[in-house]
Amino acid sequence: MSTKKVGTQTAVLANPPSFAGHANVVGKKEGEGPLAETFDYIAEDDTFGESTWEKSESAMQKQALSLALDKAGQPASNLDWLFAGDLLNQCIGSSYAARGQGIPFFGLYGACSTMGEGLALASMTLDGGFGEWAGVVVSSHFCSAERQYRNPLEYGGQRTPTAQWTVTGSGAVVLAREGPGPYITHVTVGKIVDKGIKDANNMGAAMAPAACDTLEAHFQDTGRTPKDYDLIVTGDLGSLGSELLLELLRRDGIQMSNHADCGMLIFDPQTQDVHCGGSGCGCSASVLTGHFLNGMRAGRWQNILFCPTGALHSPTASFQGESIPGICHAIAISTKKGK
Amino acid sequence: MSTKKVGTQTAVLANPPSFAGHANVVGKKEGEGPLAETFDYIAEDDTFGESTWEKSESAMQKQALSLALDKAGQPASNLDWLFAGDLLNQCIGSSYAARGQGIPFFGLYGACSTMGEGLALASMTLDGGFGEWAGVVVSSHFCSAERQYRNPLEYGGQRTPTAQWTVTGSGAVVLAREGPGPYITHVTVGKIVDKGIKDANNMGAAMAPAACDTLEAHFQDTGRTPKDYDLIVTGDLGSLGSELLLELLRRDGIQMSNHADCGMLIFDPQTQDVHCGGSGCGCSASVLTGHFLNGMRAGRWQNILFCPTGALHSPTASFQGESIPGICHAIAISTKKGK
Repeated sequence: MSTKKVGTQTAVLANPPSFAGHANVVGKKEGEGPLAETFDYIAEDDTFGESTWEKSESAMQKQALSLALDKAGQPASNLDWLFAGDLLNQCIGSSYAARGQGIPFFGLYGACSTMGEGLALASMTLDGGFGEWAGVVVSSHFCSAERQYRNPLEYGGQRTPTAQWTVTGSGAVVLAREGPGPYITHVTVGKIVDKGIKDANNMGAAMAPAACDTLEAHFQDTGRTPKDYDLIVTGDLGSLGSELLLELLRRDGIQMSNHADCGMLIFDPQTQDVHCGGSGCGCSASVLTGHFLNGMRAGRWQNILFCPTGALHSPTASFQGESIPGICHAIAISTKKGK
Repeated sequence: MSTKKVGTQTAVLANPPSFAGHANVVGKKEGEGPLAETFDYIAEDDTFGESTWEKSESAMQKQALSLALDKAGQPASNLDWLFAGDLLNQCIGSSYAARGQGIPFFGLYGACSTMGEGLALASMTLDGGFGEWAGVVVSSHFCSAERQYRNPLEYGGQRTPTAQWTVTGSGAVVLAREGPGPYITHVTVGKIVDKGIKDANNMGAAMAPAACDTLEAHFQDTGRTPKDYDLIVTGDLGSLGSELLLELLRRDGIQMSNHADCGMLIFDPQTQDVHCGGSGCGCSASVLTGHFLNGMRAGRWQNILFCPTGALHSPTASFQGESIPGICHAIAISTKKGK
């Protein structure tokens, strides 16, 4: 069998897996934003009926996967594999959500890039001939993230102008080995890039170099240019990180006029007071599984390059003076198998 | 292409990947134990020359991967993918170790089962036709784990009789798509199993039901019995968890007289004061990459079923009264491709 890897980082899916179902569940604030109509379920409050924020996050993730399975017309028992991750210590958002579901389970940690990591692994697994159905589900929750990464909400801490707002949301995908699309045709797996940024309130700046690195690798490996896509979508660089990405690419001679960022789309910057935009695993995942995949199904876009970014640090690493390693995975999604 | 999945949880590798290199690096205490001769590098002290325990863990992991690459005769730049994980919050042991190495990176969280998760994904990726070389590296460090999961060492906390001792160690594997073996022939991916155990000082009891579940699935899916293996090796159930596993299997009519547990092998229970045995990602990983794989190369064993177990909880989940979800992945390793 000849290798299906091209260049240094890109897997080409010989038999592209198809999005059979995708769904999202978000919190109240997200449901008041500009993408409200693209969410499958908007919580009335962010507890999801649970007694702790961590349990709320698991409940949200469970619901998102259940909705995606419904749309795919499959019971959970038909899933060959589940790939899941979140931002919490030891990824408990995912493990408690998957408990009792009886699906062979792969736990992932890719920070806010986790939907990209999961789509890469799930599509390579199905394309490799292992099983028929794979689930990917990720989440983030504003309240559990604030408590863990910053301060408990009750402290009422001030936020810096470069800060982003962790999205309360979960996105889930059910991929099928065969189906009518949209398809995952290529995945470019990111390397860890760290340019020395140490400000944990400026994640956009920490992640932009990783996005630049993965995009350049994707174009190099595939021979494509930005024009081969209707849209190139980053995860949660926010307004500052997006500016930096475009500037970094320009310096390397790449013009990208078709860029969008999930972190800038999910909230209204004028009215929702989120500073540089949304962030969290749930940000890119809920925007992909609603706005973008629904838009592709409606004929609005044919080819999208989905590039969620993650910051692979921790509060402990920051306390120890470490800089922030970034990563970005690029997932090429097309309405046509042969593209 | 016909599916290469059998039963509910098992992937059959049509073209079994080969262990091209494997190495381990451990701390001082591990180097004083019965497996001392099977370790590639034993630290003189556990700092690895770094100023914090978290940085020590990253240094150890980096060194293990470097030694495995040396044995495989490959530069890091030849690795198509790196699968890595550890026990620290946000998996910083792995992300800081992989930073600067320039390898497409998948971060995993499977607690102490992570070497099994990584071997499963790496072997499915290579068998699926994606690339020629894949690395898997995991670690745990007694001092960083104590600080994070229990108390800082300086507190001098007492340990319960059912407690285990987190191994300071890292194991790394380089898998090749072609090679002389040993080979990974099957992987049975675990489901999350939670029987309601809430005692975070009794991880063996929390993980034994998951090991039982995965072993039974493996035998069911493949039609094999325990006698098809020279050894069935669990990760870090320890003495109590191992007893429980054998009892659970007996109740289901399965006799397993060829069981070994990495947590019981790595320390001397008479002289090293580790209560129920060793634990941590680094426990099963350093015993696999030395004692077992070296033994297979020396002709001591032909077929081993490697079954690392993990407890997917967190201190926060325990504080909130949650029970401990367990997981176990089974990796069939053989000196013969066709087995």
